[in-house]
Order: sequence, then C-alpha cells, then structure tokens
Amino acid sequence: MQRMSLGEFDLIAKYFHRPAREAVLGIGDDCALWAPTPGQQLAISSDMLVEGRHFLSTVAPERLGHKALAVNLSDLAACGATPRAFTLALALPRADDTFLDGFARGLHDLAERYGIELIGGDTTAGPLNLCITVFGEVPPGQALRRDGARAGDGVWVSHPVGGGIGDARLALEVFRGKLALPGDAFERVRHAMERPEPRVALGLALRGLATSAIDLSDGLAGDIGHVLRRSGVGATLQAGALPRSPVLAAQDARWQVECTLAGGDDYELLFTAPADAAERVHAAAAAAGVAATCVGCIDAAPGLRVKDAAGRDLAVVGGFDHFRA
Amino acid sequence: MQRMSLGEFDLIAKYFHRPAREAVLGIGDDCALWAPTPGQQLAISSDMLVEGRHFLSTVAPERLGHKALAVNLSDLAACGATPRAFTLALALPRADDTFLDGFARGLHDLAERYGIELIGGDTTAGPLNLCITVFGEVPPGQALRRDGARAGDGVWVSHPVGGGIGDARLALEVFRGKLALPGDAFERVRHAMERPEPRVALGLALRGLATSAIDLSDGLAGDIGHVLRRSGVGATLQAGALPRSPVLAAQDARWQVECTLAGGDDYELLFTAPADAAERVHAAAAAAGVAATCVGCIDAAPGLRVKDAAGRDLAVVGGFDHFRA
Repeated sequence: MQRMSLGEFDLIAKYFHRPAREAVLGIGDDCALWAPTPGQQLAISSDMLVEGRHFLSTVAPERLGHKALAVNLSDLAACGATPRAFTLALALPRADDTFLDGFARGLHDLAERYGIELIGGDTTAGPLNLCITVFGEVPPGQALRRDGARAGDGVWVSHPVGGGIGDARLALEVFRGKLALPGDAFERVRHAMERPEPRVALGLALRGLATSAIDLSDGLAGDIGHVLRRSGVGATLQAGALPRSPVLAAQDARWQVECTLAGGDDYELLFTAPADAAERVHAAAAAAGVAATCVGCIDAAPGLRVKDAAGRDLAVVGGFDHFRA
Repeated sequence: MQRMSLGEFDLIAKYFHRPAREAVLGIGDDCALWAPTPGQQLAISSDMLVEGRHFLSTVAPERLGHKALAVNLSDLAACGATPRAFTLALALPRADDTFLDGFARGLHDLAERYGIELIGGDTTAGPLNLCITVFGEVPPGQALRRDGARAGDGVWVSHPVGGGIGDARLALEVFRGKLALPGDAFERVRHAMERPEPRVALGLALRGLATSAIDLSDGLAGDIGHVLRRSGVGATLQAGALPRSPVLAAQDARWQVECTLAGGDDYELLFTAPADAAERVHAAAAAAGVAATCVGCIDAAPGLRVKDAAGRDLAVVGGFDHFRA
C-alpha cells in the first residue's frame, strides 16, 4: 500500500478524538472506560455497513457519517433505550481527507444531537467498511422487545408527518435505472435513503405502551416476520393502509406495494399495541414529532397475510436477506 | 450476488446463537440487553480484522475465530479488566459452511474458556471483515492505563515461558518468502502468529502493581511510544534483554532486532512497574502461567533509546501503522 499523507494515529486524533465527557477514559487507550448509570440495563447493538450493499459509492460523506450512526440508533429506538455512547471501527481504502472530514462531521453532528459520545474504536486499511456499536440504557423490564405481540394487538408503523415508508427503496430503484423521477421528487426520496432519522424519541414514548417493536431495516414484510415468530402469533396487514409519501403514492401500484412491503432502509418503527391504545399511540407519536398509522392487526393464527383494498390476498414478498439478495 | 444455500438469519441461528446466560436478551432482537455488575466500570474495545492485513487467506478458519476474539481480549488484558461479553459483526463474501463452522468453533472455544458470551452482532455480505467489540469490567480506579509510567520504573514484557516476542513477525517473513525455516520451527512461529493467547490473567494480576500497560499489537518500538507520549516520559531499552524464542534466537541478528522491536501481532503485555517491584512482577507472571522480563527503564527525558549489547544506540524502527505500511 502506498504511503499516506496521514497516519492511522493522526487520523484518529484529527477526525474522531473529542475530549471525553461521560467516559472516564476515551479514545487513545487499549479500552474505553465507561460507567453506566447504576440500576439501568445496557442495550447494545452492532451494525456493519458495506459499500455497495448499505450505501452507494455516490453518497456524500457527511450523509454516510449520519447514516452509519442513525441505523445503529434506530436499533436502540426499537428497544426504547436512551442512547449513551458508541464505538466506531472503520476500514478505509485510503486516508482521504475530504471523505474523513465530511464523514466525521455527519457522525458527530448526529451524536451531538443525542448527547452521545464516541468512546473508542479502530481504524485500518481495507475495503470500505463501517462498524458501529451503540450503547443505550433502559430501566430493567422496560425494554421494547420482539416477543411481546399478542392476538388482537394493532400493528403500527411510524413515519414522517405527511410522509410514509418505502421512499428509500424508491430512490434505490431510481439509482438502479428501473424508474425515473423529476429532480425535486428524486431529492426527497434520496434524502430518505441517505439521511434516515432514528425514532429514538418515539421508542422512549412507547415504553409501557407498545407490546413489541422492531425497526424497519430489511423491509416490512420480512421484519414483521421476526416479531411474529418470536411472539408466536400471525398478522393481517391492509396494504392500502400503509403510509406513502406523495412521491410514492404517484407511482404505479406495483411500485407502491413493492416499496412499502419489501422496501428496506426505512428505519421507522414497526410496533404492536393493544387495540384500545390508539389514542395513546397517536399522542406518543405526536410528542415525538412523527406520525404513526395502524396498518393491521395481530392474529392467533401464525403467518403473515396481506390484503389489498378489495380484501383479496396479496402474495407476500419477503424482506432483504444479505445472503439471498 | 448468487443465491446462497444458507440465509443470513439461518446463518446466525446455526453458527452463532447460543442460549443467553448472562444477557437478559441475547442474539435475535434489535439490541442485546445486558446488566453489568453494579459498581464496576466497563472496559470496551473494538478491533476490526481485514483479510490480507490482519490475517492471511491461508489461515485455518478455527484459528481465525480464535484470533479475532483473542486480539480483543488482549485489549481487556492491557486494561486489567475481567472479560464479560462480546458482539461480532461479520462481512462475508459468501456463506461458506466450512469456513463458518471452523470460525465459530474457534471463537466459541476461546469464549468458553473465559466464560464470556456472544450477546449480539450483525452479518452481511461483503469483503471478509471481522469486527468484535468486547466488554470487560474493572473496579473504579483500578484499570491499567497508558498514562501512568514514571521515571525510574522498569519496562517489562510478558512472553511464554521459554519463549519470547517477535515469533509472529518471523512467521510473516516466512510467508513473505524473505526467509525459510525448517517445518517444525515454522509451525511453532506460525502458531504464535495465528493463535495468540490473550494475557488476561496477567492483566488482572498487574492491577495495583503495574503503573502503565499496553498490549503489543503493532510492534514494541511503536507501541511503547503510546505509553511514553501519554505518560510524558521517555525510555531506554536493552535490545539484548528482549526475550526471544529458540527459533528466533537462531536467526540473523538483523531479524532478531526487527522481529522483537518492530514485530507486531505479539499480543503480549508491555507494562511498567516501580523499580522495587521485580519480585512481585515475577510472582504475578508465574501465577498467570507466563514469564515477564525487564527490558529497560523509564527516563524523565522524552523519546525512546534502544541500546545494543555493547551499549551503542540502535536506530529505532517504528511500529506498524495501517496507513503507512
């Protein structure tokens, strides 16, 4: 490998080192030392992002920095955990200042919004790969889990006010050349794909209200399967009830079904709540600055059924599987 | 990408899912939930291993599984922390059963020896990349750090009884075709490279005894620099005192210097201790089943000086830098 203008340790110091706040000892020792809040459980999640799989090479570095942390915070949101800290391991083909400057800015901007700290990590040369591990806290017994859905519960999806799910997938199809969109419409769905907003506030508001939760990362039809299997239940969804942005709602019906049900990269919360909790769910969503829409219900009979507006069964499309796609 | 015989979720279930012991909620939810021991600080470290940089494509999968976890445990050892749990994020070019079976075996065997648990992670397709984050615990104020070396302290290196440091580098040079070794000698140094043993017990025994510690991963001359800079001191090392295995001691003097001082991949502990602590250091090492050798001393004057057997200055060779190598 050629000699770089910037060495590994300079790189960490320049782009990623911030004065330790919460950490007893932050970046620059063998380990970070960190004291969790006494009496809280730790919620821990790792997500690895690979170029060409989780992001395109064309993405702006600042958006990539945002997204790498956002998808991890989304896992904390789905558990109803309060974000506290994270580590970053980074493999880079080369130490490129323009990339690192933008990436670090996007990462730290989002971290600062949530008051969380980069406490450690690793940097190496290699094919571009971003691995973040996030740490959140939740009072014992209050975490949202995948195994609590019960027959009769409503199935809910969060989404932007006036927006929906599936926009990220729609943007991907434009990049793939499968369809075309006017410039402003494309920018809107591209924003959904490249700059997802983790639903942390909603996750916290759903503690004690939602019976189960998961974040939408691989597509609704696949992701809900994890909840159904772990909860030992089934579900019936109304395809027509799935929230769609004006951009997606203007596409062919086929794309609307594909993007909402098998979209991926939504980073919204899918959750279940008792049938009589609709008002409280709407209030929780409003307090978190988002919308929530009831899209179906949990059944005792296993399996996923999706109905179209006429009540006919739609063939269910699966979620994204990294070794089958 | 072609369709695989094994999907992402099957892969996790088959190779990495074990019943949760310590974790309240382990693999299979958005987050792992884990309750640290009340009153302890968490020691957290992430290491990312990339094919061709941290391991060769020829390594046996079982050894790779061992090494991926071992290098992370080595960071906990250097902090004097008790290992508790870890996460694994894995990018694989393909879901290969032979690879995964061996890799998971090596990983879980080492984890079981330390009684620690794989509590979560991620799996994706991509160029081979292994990212482990380990969690250890240490009583507040007792962690070994890089910033505590004081003038007059002895500089110590751990090593196998009857062995030394630098064998991993020697093996790498054989793979690179720079030198040749008889089969049994090669197997011994290859073992050092591919199956390092983290010095966890020694790290625990050094609490309250060592004034600073770091693990040797990028080569002694580079790694000690982190201790010197953070402690605001210098050091003088005796090259002739550096412990060498019989295999390395039989090589040219040039290789002995290169491998011990700029070796890399040793995963031994380099630590400092007060001058009058030699007996206690030897006792701590013996109790941990390893040896420790005093190789120099900490000076008030900044910088690193290395002397040969005749007391002449050796030119100092730097450690490994992933963006300069």
